[in-house]
Amino acid sequence: MPQLALIRHGQSEWNLQNRFTGWVDVDLTDEGIAQAKRSGELLARAGFEPTHAFVSVLKRAIKTLNLTLDGLDRLWIPVDKSWRLNERHYGALAGLDKNETRAKHGDEQVKIWRRSFDTPPPPIATDHAYHPINDRRYADVPREFLPASESLKSTLDRVEPYWSESILPRLQAGETLIVAAHGNSLRALVKLLFRVSDADIMEIEVPTGNPLLIDLDDDGTTLRNARYLDAERAKPLPPLPDA
Amino acid sequence: MPQLALIRHGQSEWNLQNRFTGWVDVDLTDEGIAQAKRSGELLARAGFEPTHAFVSVLKRAIKTLNLTLDGLDRLWIPVDKSWRLNERHYGALAGLDKNETRAKHGDEQVKIWRRSFDTPPPPIATDHAYHPINDRRYADVPREFLPASESLKSTLDRVEPYWSESILPRLQAGETLIVAAHGNSLRALVKLLFRVSDADIMEIEVPTGNPLLIDLDDDGTTLRNARYLDAERAKPLPPLPDA
Repeated sequence: MPQLALIRHGQSEWNLQNRFTGWVDVDLTDEGIAQAKRSGELLARAGFEPTHAFVSVLKRAIKTLNLTLDGLDRLWIPVDKSWRLNERHYGALAGLDKNETRAKHGDEQVKIWRRSFDTPPPPIATDHAYHPINDRRYADVPREFLPASESLKSTLDRVEPYWSESILPRLQAGETLIVAAHGNSLRALVKLLFRVSDADIMEIEVPTGNPLLIDLDDDGTTLRNARYLDAERAKPLPPLPDA
Repeated sequence: MPQLALIRHGQSEWNLQNRFTGWVDVDLTDEGIAQAKRSGELLARAGFEPTHAFVSVLKRAIKTLNLTLDGLDRLWIPVDKSWRLNERHYGALAGLDKNETRAKHGDEQVKIWRRSFDTPPPPIATDHAYHPINDRRYADVPREFLPASESLKSTLDRVEPYWSESILPRLQAGETLIVAAHGNSLRALVKLLFRVSDADIMEIEVPTGNPLLIDLDDDGTTLRNARYLDAERAKPLPPLPDA
């Protein structure tokens, strides 16, 4: 039966500094590294044996994946990297201190940018270093796909084709997959897997460094079981949808 | 112009224990990790910006690649892993202490196994854990391709199709490539690149943790320049072949 593990990277340098990150390629802290190793241990203990991995093009997720695969003695499996699994792009907020941003724009406005389903933060300028058109790693991505800012909805819109074209076919072939990604790209995958409504998805959060292990039917879309491997640090999951 | 860096992994646990390794998936030592980081520093200083990476399916090469790419801030590039870049399979010698093997079989016999172009060591038994048919990472490789032992010649024979079908086309497209691999699979690549004779290739050795940087013409096969980035630890290179 196909199986899927979702892993959210652990603490990054900008988590620690309380700055909006998004597509900015900040590194893991030592704590983030320890969380990734722990994810590998939890998955090894669960007997998880992935055959293929997916990851964003951001180093905090890639290092989380590499450390996890090392813990599983599975560094040799193929890994596909895609910008479509990146964190939500935080637009002009990228790099800003969260408290300063609240002081400047007001709590209410920042809450809307952070928690609304379809309101993106202000766009980042096209000549800013944090605009993806100025980052060589996106040189092969059609320019019209590269966001200057994203809401959760637009994040979901660019995750969905990757899910249906790259991940789902391998589940339907019976593979065991691991996806290492970010708070909002994983929220998008949870929304697709659990068929969560637009209204409810903002309440769902995948905790960091705590693998979410999902058993599926052969169709790759019917969920049989889903659980966090670190039960003490688990967060509520949506109900399993009817088959 | 296309560019290619070849990197041989650094010290592994069995280098340290003086055991024959081959396809056995032993880890890097701390010294091996330091050598990989140093490779990344040397390549960064040379302004090397790879667009695609190739590596064996053995963790000592994969970790060397990951540490090198991290040093280049290029963890996001695509990485292709293939058994065809593995170290030479040492057959029944895999795992044995090199001194004990000499005491048992004689210096002369061991020298032939190690240094002859086309004499493989005795084959490993098909029910031995070190035979590749018993390792799930090779489950998708046709069984007739999986060796019970390899000479340098048979190593070269399985590296060559990977060179011509996977690596060369990307050089001909003008890409900048990095290959992280092993003493004998890199020797095979050097033989192809420098058109070294069967008689001469055993004298050529790529040192560990010292990137070999090669500039090529647009055809991907004419060498314009080749140099080790750590000049003090360099070993002799074959002459550049005539264009």
